[in-house]
Amino acid sequence: MSPKAFRTSIRVAWVDTDAVGVVHFSNYLRYFERAEEEFYRHLGFTFDDAAIQDYWFPRVEVFCQYRKPARFNDLLEVELAIEELKEKSVRYGFKISKKETQTLIAEGHVIVVSAKRQTGKAAQMPPEFVDKLKPYCR
Amino acid sequence: MSPKAFRTSIRVAWVDTDAVGVVHFSNYLRYFERAEEEFYRHLGFTFDDAAIQDYWFPRVEVFCQYRKPARFNDLLEVELAIEELKEKSVRYGFKISKKETQTLIAEGHVIVVSAKRQTGKAAQMPPEFVDKLKPYCR
Amino acid sequence: MSPKAFRTSIRVAWVDTDAVGVVHFSNYLRYFERAEEEFYRHLGFTFDDAAIQDYWFPRVEVFCQYRKPARFNDLLEVELAIEELKEKSVRYGFKISKKETQTLIAEGHVIVVSAKRQTGKAAQMPPEFVDKLKPYCR
Amino acid sequence: MSPKAFRTSIRVAWVDTDAVGVVHFSNYLRYFERAEEEFYRHLGFTFDDAAIQDYWFPRVEVFCQYRKPARFNDLLEVELAIEELKEKSVRYGFKISKKETQTLIAEGHVIVVSAKRQTGKAAQMPPEFVDKLKPYCR
Repeated sequence: MSPKAFRTSIRVAWVDTDAVGVVHFSNYLRYFERAEEEFYRHLGFTFDDAAIQDYWFPRVEVFCQYRKPARFNDLLEVELAIEELKEKSVRYGFKISKKETQTLIAEGHVIVVSAKRQTGKAAQMPPEFVDKLKPYCR
Repeated sequence: MSPKAFRTSIRVAWVDTDAVGVVHFSNYLRYFERAEEEFYRHLGFTFDDAAIQDYWFPRVEVFCQYRKPARFNDLLEVELAIEELKEKSVRYGFKISKKETQTLIAEGHVIVVSAKRQTGKAAQMPPEFVDKLKPYCR
Repeated sequence: MSPKAFRTSIRVAWVDTDAVGVVHFSNYLRYFERAEEEFYRHLGFTFDDAAIQDYWFPRVEVFCQYRKPARFNDLLEVELAIEELKEKSVRYGFKISKKETQTLIAEGHVIVVSAKRQTGKAAQMPPEFVDKLKPYCR
Repeated sequence: MSPKAFRTSIRVAWVDTDAVGVVHFSNYLRYFERAEEEFYRHLGFTFDDAAIQDYWFPRVEVFCQYRKPARFNDLLEVELAIEELKEKSVRYGFKISKKETQTLIAEGHVIVVSAKRQTGKAAQMPPEFVDKLKPYCR
C-alpha cells in the first residue's frame, strides 16, 4: 500500500510579504507548522487530551529550499508526508505549491522530537499517536 | 519636577516590511512592547525575581495612529511615558519618530493590567514596581 | 434594510501564542486584517485588476480592546462591519469571538485610507469599490 | 590570515516566545537575517546606493539545528561567517549562543543569491560587495 500524503491550503496574507512583494522566507516554515497542526486535527488529536498534554514536540532541525516566490493572495497547497518515524522523533517532509498551477514554491523537512513537557527530555511517543502516523510513512 | 520620558532605538528589519515597502502596521505595536521591555530592564527588573514572576501583565487596550510610513533600515526612536498610573493598571503613551529627522511616524497608547499569573485575576501592582514607575508619570 | 456583516473563521496557530500560553495582543490586529482580505475576496476583488492595483490602502488608525484570552487551537470567528464610509476612507469595526461558545475575545476598529500607489496621496475610492461596500454600512 | 567572524547581540522579545515559553523555531531564522542586516551596515552598505538598489538578495536555502531553548529576555549572540562565496551567491554560517554562558542555542546556514531586482534573474554580485565580503570567508 502506498503511503498517504496530507494536503492543506493556505492563503498568503499581506503581512506575510516583504518589501520586494514576495513571501518572507521565514513564513514558509510557519506554513509547514500550520500544515502539521492541521494534520494533527485531521488525525483527531484534540490537544486537550491528558495523554497529549503531557508531551511537547520541539523541533530539532529544519531545512527549506526556495524554488519560486509566492505573493500576496496566492492560494498555496502544502503537502506533508512522513519521511522517517523513530521511537522519539518524526521527520516530516513538506512541499508547498501554488494550488492553481501546481508550480513548486518551496520544499524541505522538519524533525520533531517527542519530549515530556515537565522534564523537557526526549521520550517515546504515545503508542496511539504512532499508530495514527504510520499510514503516512514513505 | 517634570515627568521623565524613556527613549530607546529600534532598527527596522526587512521582515517588518510589507509588499508596499513600508513597515506593517501591526509591527508598531510590537515596537511599543519592545520599548516597554527595554524600559523594565532600565528600571532594573530582571524578570527572574520571584516577586515579578508571580505576575502577568496582559494588555487590555491598544490604540495607534499612523502618521508617516517607515521603511527597511530606518532607525526609529520610541518614546514611552506614563499617561495614567492606577492601582492595578498602567497606561503607557508611545511616540515613534525617525531618529535622524525626528519625523513623527506613529503614536498611541497601551493599557496594561497587573494580574496574578496563577488566577489570571487583576491584582495590585507590587509596591516596588509602582515606586519605580512614578517618576515617569505625566 | 439592516446592514450586512461579514464573518470568517480563523484557527489560532501555535506561533500566534506567547509565553503565558495566550495569543499575543498584536496578532488580533493581524486577524482583523485577514478578515478584511477575506471580505475583499468575498466581494469579488481579485487584487489583480488594474483598477485596484493603482491603489494602496494604508491604515491610519487602529484600536483594540481585549476581553478574554484565546489559546492555541481555538477556532475564532471574526465579524466585520462598516462603521463609517467616507469618500477616501473606511472605518471597519471588528469583533472576535470563540466560535463554539460565542465568548467575546477582542473588539476594535481600523481606519483604512484609499491612496494612489504612485503618489502615496489620499484619493477617492474607485466607485465600483464603494458600491460593493455600501450594503455593509451600519 | 584567519577569517574574520562578525558578531551581534539580540535580546529575546516577549512576542518571539510561544506557549511553552521558548523562542519559536522560525524566529531563529529571523535572528540570522537580522545579523546579516547588521553585518551589511557594519561593512558600510547603506541600502540606498544605486549600485545596491538594483539588486535583490533572495534566499534559496536555509538550514537550522536547535540545541537548547532560549527564553524571554535572554541576551543572545549571533555569529556570522562566510562558508562559501561564489560569483552569484553567498553561503552564510550562523551560530546563536547565550551571551552570558556561551551555551549554543542554534546553528545553521543560509544561501543567498544575488539577483537583479527588475528581472529577478541571478546576476554577478557587484565587485565592491565581493571585496568587502572576502575577509570573512572561512
